[in-house]
Amino acid sequence: MIETAEKLDFTKLDGLIAAVIQDSMSKDVLMVGFMNSESYLQTIQSGFVHFFSRSRNKLWMKGESSGHTLQVVEIRTDCDRDALVISVIANGPGVCHEGYASCFFRTFAGNQWSTNSEQTFSPNDIYGGTK
Amino acid sequence: MIETAEKLDFTKLDGLIAAVIQDSMSKDVLMVGFMNSESYLQTIQSGFVHFFSRSRNKLWMKGESSGHTLQVVEIRTDCDRDALVISVIANGPGVCHEGYASCFFRTFAGNQWSTNSEQTFSPNDIYGGTK
Repeated sequence: MIETAEKLDFTKLDGLIAAVIQDSMSKDVLMVGFMNSESYLQTIQSGFVHFFSRSRNKLWMKGESSGHTLQVVEIRTDCDRDALVISVIANGPGVCHEGYASCFFRTFAGNQWSTNSEQTFSPNDIYGGTK
Repeated sequence: MIETAEKLDFTKLDGLIAAVIQDSMSKDVLMVGFMNSESYLQTIQSGFVHFFSRSRNKLWMKGESSGHTLQVVEIRTDCDRDALVISVIANGPGVCHEGYASCFFRTFAGNQWSTNSEQTFSPNDIYGGTK
């Protein structure tokens, strides 16, 4: 029997929990997404990360258009059971729709934000306007 | 002049953004909290992580009662500017109010959640019922 979503607390963010995606090898944080109970269940059943898009109001598998899927290695939850850390193998050159390995490519230093990472692919080639 | 919070997007979660706290040495994710613009500014001005507590509806400095403060090493934001990854030096034996080094002490395996970390301190000794 597959674990149900009942043991996680989806109440604090109107049915969603934050899911931190971490590279299983480098331990870099690649992105933060949100899951509802259905996307959580799809994730554990399929072994690939599924999110709930707040802007599009729909379930989606990360990489469904780009091919840059996130293969689940380990899932952790916290003391309050209202957040996840998912250790993954990231397929493809990067997870970010702006062409970077990680969405967290901006660093705050000297009292301003700056980009100090290199793009790993051309977002236009991969997404053509979609994520 | 200190960076204002204007360049981050606090609109998606009713004035809050998710802040992932990552140990600067081990790269373990220690906890996930939420910040409003005021707690973000307090964090960059003081060099110690401040959150906004959704349950208590107030700004707080992590460690203000326990002494287990989080010293900022680096702050990153993502492509959508609606989440942070804060690399920290975690003072004290652990960040979790249940007595663990990381709040993410439960792992999903074999279709169930289990605790596979050891406590690093006694939460009753430190918190006595508060966080």
